[in-house]
Amino acid sequence: MSTTHPILIAGSWAEDPSSETFSATNPATGEKLEGAYPVSSRQTLERMARCSAEAASELNTLDPQRVAAFLDSHASLIDERRKSIAEMAHLETGLEISPRLMESEMDRTIDQLRQAAGCVRSGEWVSARIDTDKNLRSMYEPLGGGVLTIGPNNFPLAYNAIAGGDFAAAIAARNPIIAKGHPLHPATTRLLAECAHEAAKSTGMPDGTVQMFYHCSPEDGLTLIRMPEISAFGFTGSQKAGLAMKKAADETGTPAYLELSSINPMFLMPGAVGTRGGDIAQSIADSMLAASGQQCTCPGLIVLSESEESEAMIARLTQHLSEAEPHVMLSHDGVDSLHDAVLHNIEQGAERIIGGNPMPGDAARYEHTLLRVSASRFLENHQELQTEMFGVAALLVVCDIDDQFVEVARKLEGNLTGTIHHDGSEQDRALHAQLVRELRLRVGRLIHNGVPTGVSVNAATVHGGPYPATGHPGFTAVGMPTAIHRFAALRCYDQVDEWALPPELRDKNPTGTMLRYVDQEWTTRDA
Amino acid sequence: MSTTHPILIAGSWAEDPSSETFSATNPATGEKLEGAYPVSSRQTLERMARCSAEAASELNTLDPQRVAAFLDSHASLIDERRKSIAEMAHLETGLEISPRLMESEMDRTIDQLRQAAGCVRSGEWVSARIDTDKNLRSMYEPLGGGVLTIGPNNFPLAYNAIAGGDFAAAIAARNPIIAKGHPLHPATTRLLAECAHEAAKSTGMPDGTVQMFYHCSPEDGLTLIRMPEISAFGFTGSQKAGLAMKKAADETGTPAYLELSSINPMFLMPGAVGTRGGDIAQSIADSMLAASGQQCTCPGLIVLSESEESEAMIARLTQHLSEAEPHVMLSHDGVDSLHDAVLHNIEQGAERIIGGNPMPGDAARYEHTLLRVSASRFLENHQELQTEMFGVAALLVVCDIDDQFVEVARKLEGNLTGTIHHDGSEQDRALHAQLVRELRLRVGRLIHNGVPTGVSVNAATVHGGPYPATGHPGFTAVGMPTAIHRFAALRCYDQVDEWALPPELRDKNPTGTMLRYVDQEWTTRDA
Repeated sequence: MSTTHPILIAGSWAEDPSSETFSATNPATGEKLEGAYPVSSRQTLERMARCSAEAASELNTLDPQRVAAFLDSHASLIDERRKSIAEMAHLETGLEISPRLMESEMDRTIDQLRQAAGCVRSGEWVSARIDTDKNLRSMYEPLGGGVLTIGPNNFPLAYNAIAGGDFAAAIAARNPIIAKGHPLHPATTRLLAECAHEAAKSTGMPDGTVQMFYHCSPEDGLTLIRMPEISAFGFTGSQKAGLAMKKAADETGTPAYLELSSINPMFLMPGAVGTRGGDIAQSIADSMLAASGQQCTCPGLIVLSESEESEAMIARLTQHLSEAEPHVMLSHDGVDSLHDAVLHNIEQGAERIIGGNPMPGDAARYEHTLLRVSASRFLENHQELQTEMFGVAALLVVCDIDDQFVEVARKLEGNLTGTIHHDGSEQDRALHAQLVRELRLRVGRLIHNGVPTGVSVNAATVHGGPYPATGHPGFTAVGMPTAIHRFAALRCYDQVDEWALPPELRDKNPTGTMLRYVDQEWTTRDA
Repeated sequence: MSTTHPILIAGSWAEDPSSETFSATNPATGEKLEGAYPVSSRQTLERMARCSAEAASELNTLDPQRVAAFLDSHASLIDERRKSIAEMAHLETGLEISPRLMESEMDRTIDQLRQAAGCVRSGEWVSARIDTDKNLRSMYEPLGGGVLTIGPNNFPLAYNAIAGGDFAAAIAARNPIIAKGHPLHPATTRLLAECAHEAAKSTGMPDGTVQMFYHCSPEDGLTLIRMPEISAFGFTGSQKAGLAMKKAADETGTPAYLELSSINPMFLMPGAVGTRGGDIAQSIADSMLAASGQQCTCPGLIVLSESEESEAMIARLTQHLSEAEPHVMLSHDGVDSLHDAVLHNIEQGAERIIGGNPMPGDAARYEHTLLRVSASRFLENHQELQTEMFGVAALLVVCDIDDQFVEVARKLEGNLTGTIHHDGSEQDRALHAQLVRELRLRVGRLIHNGVPTGVSVNAATVHGGPYPATGHPGFTAVGMPTAIHRFAALRCYDQVDEWALPPELRDKNPTGTMLRYVDQEWTTRDA
């Protein structure tokens, strides 16, 4: 009689012995969606961890070309099923089908997998280094155990635990994956896991290379992170959950790659506001409204100086946000969290310009919200006033003297992005020089005259930043091949015989085109 | 009347307000050495942290050529003073003056600084990536705050907090340094700090770029690690101290680069023991005896199979170690710790072959020690029997069936190195294939037919490994430029105007020869 969906474990779809289940909800209607999904028990997670460790041993010496074939096959299956996957994701998340899910996020997801495959084929990501005189050779290799990927609610495809960026990067480094789907979109995750499983079978990947479960208790999740078979984990989501997981991982020395909250400060210089305040207002409104503000790069803090032009800019921004109809958010819980954060910032000294309330009706919606505070007040209470409002909501910080721009920047926590609008004038550039000294150290991506949303999957991007925006400032979650290095161990071969070397480190260049560092120079020649 | 030595703070030598002091001891005689050194207070550490943060802002945009000049100047001053520095280090540590201190360790120290300078000059370590179509640019940059370097007792020069590998790597990435000298060799650290300070002055480095203190309470040390001005720390030393520091760093999301204990397992295959057991015994003895076994890569666990040839090899190893006269160790505390570890392993089931006692007399010396245990017993109690014995002491693990080689490998904790001796025969290679699947995942550097001691400062080496040998498997403490990446943040410039870009990311290649990833290819051309 059970209609509970199976989990993907040890190379097969199998019923989870757990009797606890959950269902998803349509955030547009508040109605329960069809299908029961298991809340996996500790025993299931232990079994997954063991299978993962077995797969890790096999993957360590697997031909990278097979991994590339798997990634490409996974991408192609997703591509073939893009319509049904996008429709399901829309039902579960309320995000627009087109172009958001069916085209932009879907294309990004497929592209990430294919870029990862390309990196595996070229092999350059391993940074092979050979010294023939000392017979020392080193490269990046798999970590040696399973990688736990934990997807967020806001990108059901591009960050999905079994198809997104962390998945692609960790598999590219030949690690087995234990994917934990987000409980708000289990069916979307199931469809993507079907693609991953079929691709793994057809390309002959070891059993246990891709495993997936939907949900577990927070305690069991922390236990899984501490298991010795788990070599690293990738998490995108709330700061609270992420830091609890980091704590568990720290206890066992397990690398934790986190992408946590970020308020993405924007600094609008007087010259820029004076010359194109209206355009800036429009671009910020568009950036805030995208995906109902539920993006880690959504502008949340806007700093500008007190002036008539600034007031006009604020009025335009207010108008754009007021005129737009609030869309459905990912969940009713998300509306509640946003409301709590807005009320918190008001309690801490911010004034409401517009919004600040949930919308009536069954759909999970929230009024577009703008708050305002003086820079002096912000500086007095800067820790509390950096509370992230995840949705269409931002805090304007108005400086009465330009020096306060720098002071505000100095008090910022680590963020994924920081944006400066300037008009290139001497005045703006002088202020820029002071500001950037502080801001640059506190953000992963610095933007000029643009908006922080719209992350390009590009080798030259960085989607990272100082703690607490992420768990480590030296890595990026987006951009191949750099993102792969998160899930790799640096290993050396000292006087090791040719027959025991990985192909990448043998004298003969394995592809003929792989760039390797041989005897003090980067070259494609044989060693 | 105070004869307490000053500390190096905020660009000057200054008296430390602390009234608490300590002195070093000559481990060869047990006598106190001249000179009192301050135990710095929390207030001093707070001031250093603030100065460090100020220096970090300036260093972030400092011309790398000046940093390279500083590193070279530091190296040259050490070179000029090598005799007096080596003599002082000998007095404080008991290590041989020549060739150990005056030549090998001194040359390595100077070479590391010069290699770091070379990396800074070429600039390739920053991994500049440019996408001209999207106008996205990224590179490694300084962390933005101070880096705390904490040197160990066993390499007073090459790992010294103000001249060693962590120092060179962190400065190369343009981070200001707060160096904590090891309290066993304060005068050596003082002499090296004088070189660093003079070099910093003569090359015009910002005040606060290099600061140094000698000692602090453990609690104040943990408080320093948690200060927001500290961006990372590098520590080489005991597992207990290192893990306490890592815990403090984890709380504030501060990257911790640790090099902790390692027992450096060696696996001697039957064929290898049969054909050259005598040579292997000699090489292991030499490796163990170097620096009185006080090296992180000293062989501490030797696995071999039960046979007549193995017994002959063990007898030879025993003989070599017995014939050699125990040298003075770094400290009397070190002798005590070694004795505790030896007794612990005996209590846990190991049998004594030779040694196991401190030597009589004033000098800090310990009998050369060999312990032995069956693989079966080892497997029953593998956690306890992996207790590091830091000195000339090793545990032999004797396997009665070859399968136990693999079982033993599977139970190993993370180590810096793992060594396999084989004779290339079919039998040894078949066993190698099984063994390496497990061993490879647990060690940073895999060695064939050699010994783990003797780390080459080379771009292709890895001096790292899985936890708990280090704090992160993706990095190395030795080998330029890779070691520099530990102390760098990955940062991106998105649509940023040319005038606000670092030289490495402008269209024009800043050196004409720097390899950059421009529009999907590594090239030295302009973007």
